[in-house]
Parts: sequence; C-alpha cells; structure tokens
Amino acid sequence: MAAERIYLDWNATAPLMGVARDAMVEALAMPGNPSSVHAEGRAARAAIEKARRDVAALVMADPAHVTFTASATEAANHVLSPVYRMGKSRVTLGRLYVSAIEHPAVRAGGRFAADAVSEIPVTRTGVIDLDALSSTLAAHDLSAGLPLVAVMLVNNETGIIQPIQEIFAVVKKSGGLLVVDAVQAVGRIPLSISELGADFLILSAHKLGGPKGVGALVSRGETLMPEPLVRGGGQEKGHRAGTENLAAIAGFGAAAREMAAGLVERNAHVAALRDRAEQAMLSVAPDTVIYGRGEARVGNTSFFHLPGLKAETGQIAFDLEGVALSAGAACSSGKVGASHVLTAMGEHAATGALRLSIGTDTTDSDIDRFLGAFAKIAARRKPAGQAA
Amino acid sequence: MAAERIYLDWNATAPLMGVARDAMVEALAMPGNPSSVHAEGRAARAAIEKARRDVAALVMADPAHVTFTASATEAANHVLSPVYRMGKSRVTLGRLYVSAIEHPAVRAGGRFAADAVSEIPVTRTGVIDLDALSSTLAAHDLSAGLPLVAVMLVNNETGIIQPIQEIFAVVKKSGGLLVVDAVQAVGRIPLSISELGADFLILSAHKLGGPKGVGALVSRGETLMPEPLVRGGGQEKGHRAGTENLAAIAGFGAAAREMAAGLVERNAHVAALRDRAEQAMLSVAPDTVIYGRGEARVGNTSFFHLPGLKAETGQIAFDLEGVALSAGAACSSGKVGASHVLTAMGEHAATGALRLSIGTDTTDSDIDRFLGAFAKIAARRKPAGQAA
Repeated sequence: MAAERIYLDWNATAPLMGVARDAMVEALAMPGNPSSVHAEGRAARAAIEKARRDVAALVMADPAHVTFTASATEAANHVLSPVYRMGKSRVTLGRLYVSAIEHPAVRAGGRFAADAVSEIPVTRTGVIDLDALSSTLAAHDLSAGLPLVAVMLVNNETGIIQPIQEIFAVVKKSGGLLVVDAVQAVGRIPLSISELGADFLILSAHKLGGPKGVGALVSRGETLMPEPLVRGGGQEKGHRAGTENLAAIAGFGAAAREMAAGLVERNAHVAALRDRAEQAMLSVAPDTVIYGRGEARVGNTSFFHLPGLKAETGQIAFDLEGVALSAGAACSSGKVGASHVLTAMGEHAATGALRLSIGTDTTDSDIDRFLGAFAKIAARRKPAGQAA
Repeated sequence: MAAERIYLDWNATAPLMGVARDAMVEALAMPGNPSSVHAEGRAARAAIEKARRDVAALVMADPAHVTFTASATEAANHVLSPVYRMGKSRVTLGRLYVSAIEHPAVRAGGRFAADAVSEIPVTRTGVIDLDALSSTLAAHDLSAGLPLVAVMLVNNETGIIQPIQEIFAVVKKSGGLLVVDAVQAVGRIPLSISELGADFLILSAHKLGGPKGVGALVSRGETLMPEPLVRGGGQEKGHRAGTENLAAIAGFGAAAREMAAGLVERNAHVAALRDRAEQAMLSVAPDTVIYGRGEARVGNTSFFHLPGLKAETGQIAFDLEGVALSAGAACSSGKVGASHVLTAMGEHAATGALRLSIGTDTTDSDIDRFLGAFAKIAARRKPAGQAA
C-alpha cells in the first residue's frame, strides 16, 4: 500500500502544469492591482492581456472577445441570461434550451426562470438528438424573444463529441443564439469558435492544466452581449466587475499556450493509452460496457459499467487500491447520485458507471496499475443482477 | 532612477504575504477536486475547511457561516439581492439603502433595479449621516418588503471608520437587514460580526495580504440567506456553485491566520509610520488638507489634497519618482474620474486627492522616500486655484 497513488480523474480537475505554476508564482510576486495606473498596476495589466491573447488563440478567437470569470460555472450563469444588450438596447431572449446531458452549471439555467428552460433529449448512444432539437425549436414562440440554446461540445462523463456544426445549423434556422460549453473539449481537440459556429464558448482553466478559480466566456462578436452578472467596477470592459484574479489568469494563459503547442500529437499519445486500457478491460471482463465507443469521443475518457458492480462501490474499491477515478462527475460537492447522463441515455442509471479520465502526464505504468486494480475488482464483484 | 520602487497603495491591493504564498504553492500541488470523494478530493476539501475556520476566526464568526466567493464584488452582488430564502419560503426585500461613499461594487446595487436603490448622504467629514439614515428608514414602505442597508465599516479612500453599531441600532428599529462591507477593515481593526451587529460581512483576501481572486460572504446566522447568484453544482452548501478556487482559498486562510496574530501591535506600528508621514507633510506644505483627521480612522491610510495639484497629475509625478500611490480608488479599471467620496463630502472633488496607504511591510525608509518625493512635488506645484 506504500505504492504511489495514481490520479486518473482528469475530467474532474487536471493537475496543474509546471508552466502554469511558474506563471502563477511570478504573478503572485507582482504587487499591483491591474486597475491601478502606476507602474505596478500597468505590469499587472500587461500580464492579464498576455493571458487573454493566449486563451483567445486556443479557440481562435479575438482577444477582445475574451471575458475572464472565476469559473466556467460563473461564465454559464453570465451567458445564460434572458436579458442581453445590443449597444444600449435591451434584447430579451424568450426561452433557454439545454440538452439533457449538460453539466449542472448549464442545467441550472443561469438567470432563466425554471419554467423558461426546456430540455433536449439525447439518443441512446449519448448524442444530442438533432431531430428533437429541430422540432422543439420549430415550435419556439418568437413573441417572447429569440431562443437561446446551450449544449456541450464534449460530454464530461462519456467524452462523446457532440455534433455542434449540425446543431449550429438548426439553431441559426430558428434565429437563436448558440452557447457551447467547451470545458472538456479545449486542449483535447482543435477548436475554432467560428468554425464551430458558436456565439459563445464557455471555458475552464482547471480542466486543461491551468488553475482552479478561473474560466472564460468567449464571444464570436460583441454586438449582442449578456447583461453582466457581477456588477461594480469597470473591469473586463464592463462585462464582469471585481479585481481580476491575476495569478489564476496568468496560469490559465500559460496552460493555454502550452496546450496549443503539439495538441494533436499529445492527444494521440493519450488516446493510445486509453485505447490500450479499454482493450485490456474487455479482455479481462468481456461483459464490461464502455459507453460511446461507436461515437466520436475525445481520447482521454473511458466511461464504463461493470455488471455486478455499483459505481460508488467501485470507486471506493479503486480508491483503496490507490487509484483515483470517479463515479460520474465531481460537480456536486461530494454528492454521489445517479448520473443524469446515463439516465438521459436510458442506460444502467441505477448501478452507474465509472469514469477513467487521463491526461498528458499519464504513463504506461499508470495504466498498468489501473488494470491491476481493475482485474482484482472485476474478479470479486457479485454476479450480474446483484450489484453491491 | 535605479532606486527600488516603493509601493504605498495597499488599499488598492496589498502585497501577498509569504505565508499566503506558501499555502498557495502547497495547494497548487494538490491534484484533486474538492468535490471528489477519493483521497485526492478529500485532501483538497480539508484544505478548504481549514481556511474557512481561519477566515471565520478573523471576524469571530461560525465557520459554517462563511461562503467563499471570487471577490468582494461577487459577495456584494450575491448579498444585495431583492430575493432571500428562509428555508423554502421566499422573502422579498423591498429596497436597498447604500451610503454615498460605498465602493462601486455596492453602489451598483447588486441585483436590485436601479430605481429600488436609495443613497444615504455623508457628513462633510466623511461619516455616514445617522439622522438622514434614520429618517429615510422611517419613511421606508414595508409593503414592498423589508429594507436592506449596505454600508462600509472603513472607507477605502479616507480610511474613516463608520459608526456601524449606531447604524445597526437604526436598521434594527426599521426591521431591516444590515450588510457591512468590511473589506478595508479586516486585518486593520479587531472585528466581531456579532459585536458589530451586521447580518452579513463582505470580505476580500487581497486587501489583507491574501491573493486576488477570493472573497467571502460571512453571515451571522443562516436562517435568512440570499438567493444564490451563481447556480449549478452544490458547492458552498448550495450558496455558490463552481469548483472552489483551492489555492486562493488556502492563501486567504493563511493570510487571515497571520493577520489575526498580533493585529493590534502590528497596526500600531503602521499607524505610527502614517502619523509621521502626515506630520512631515504638514510641516513641508502647511496648506495640505488631510481628510478625516478629526474622525476615527484606520492607521494605514492618508487621503490628502495639495492645493494647486490635480490628483491625476500628482499620481503620475509620484509614479515617476518611483512611488506608487493612488488618486482615489483603483476599482474602475484604470479610469481616473472624480472621487465619489469627495463629491459626497462636498470637498475638492474637481482637483481630487491622493491616497497613501501602507501596510505591515512598509518601513521608515519607505516613508522617507515618499516624503522626499512629496517635498519635490509640493515645491513645483502651481499656485492654488491654478491646478494643473
């Protein structure tokens, strides 16, 4: 039991990259407030604007269109607003449409009233149902305002890449706005806000090797912008008040820059590790169900169900073997409940599934350690139908 | 010009304490998400709860009543809500009353509509006008809901300590709730939430030697709580969603712990430096106006007007001499406008004033450097009435 622990829960939060830590330590030594006009203030401001360029580059956006927030959750609450501004005019959005597999930060509906939020179902294989989206938006009542659609590019539990370009086409036909939660996509697949067609992207630093405590809302233009959520000083061009989190923003920028370099090669390496793990799991326990294998997936995630093993029990068993992975998402403060993603897919929701999620530091020997624990746990599970 | 720069703008943001940096670097090395149930998640959670106890102790509150936010501005937007919850019941607050010298984060009114916010004037000496507060609250229309009053304990520009206990008595007579912005007070004067009588305190880490990017809303009880501003996962007991900013929270805790130890002695030392500076300023330029000298003030702040010198010009002149201080507050992203505090006091608003704000690292030689620059700048200013 003295063996080192293996961290395979990168979709919950990724370890901080060295370059991000260095940028943060450097920023922590800067005394100034980025809003101050003296030399110390200007130096802090310059560090923020550099990070803004690096984050923008990661999604091929204009740096002027990046608003830093404290988290992707805050960015979601900011952009999911029934009130927008076009210059000085107020524009009302009538209804919010979210898919059934969105992160709780998006499912909560931001500033929309609960009865102004509709859910779009997903297929049994975990892909947003385009036909349902299409017919739902066709029935949208424009008299209350334009529709706002929020979907994720990559699901945090399954890793499935959603058909955003097709979704974009449907949304544009309805005259609506499209918000894309790209939290689990950035750093894992190449990304361009204009190619995707998104009006807004939601980003988080800590899922890609930056620090916790910073996210961003990226817009394609700046004609139509959500009413600010956090008001006060004029920071972030008036879109988000409060002294900027200088160190975290600097860390976000450094992680984004590092991630953008060699993204394809790095992720091919990660995917090879994941694929090896999945093949070995299936040969040890051929009844293992791996979700999304037939769909486009990011290379770092494996969401699997072992018949006869409750996800909660499985997670504890892996933890005791020194392997950190998760039963669903870690977004609700220690609460382990049924996965809403599995429920939406109509799959094994009662027993749940385990999520292995890896990253650029994951090694072959980590995968071996995981597979060793997997074999042990698979061998001692109850017969199917008697999950414990 | 090769001399080291002197940072005397602690009210804009204080340099990070060594203990806070160390706690942050340690937290940055923790891989887990505080919401994860595996060992890595539990370690991250423990670090947050330790910080919560330290921050609570600084204001003699129950740790269970501390909600971490990304900034004091966010805490203000959170607590300044027309909708509160008492268990599952909805409670409406009818109107927000803020003083004319509040920080922009409070003056913006949070989630109240602009026409539901009233301003309470201050006296010519910069103290909230108790009579005006009293008569305004006596005229409050209870049919729309209880009044919410938000005032600061220490003004960020003048350093004047406001009479919160008297304000509390007036507010309680009206049946209202009292929010106290304690951002510039914590770490500078001993503080107890129950002695003050505040229902809520707003705190910021970076004004007391913690990092930028974290603040807190502290409540005296938890019966009546504001409707969450940032919704999603169940973090912070459901009051504030989003993955916690682990490193910044750990840094906040460490700074709070350090600040609580020897607070009185430390601040006596700081006050002695400030008093020496003020005496020397008055002997070099006897026409210098120092605001709030006749009122109770924190010991680290000096807000002064030099006849014949525009504050903006003065700030640039000090900056060129290697001394960072500010012309008013640094809360509006580089925007230098008339000080709303001076305007509210009916004083020299057109020319403005300069703010010297120091802290525990400030030395005698820093004060000497400041006084050297002060003498130079005072000597070359225009005759009064021709401010440039």
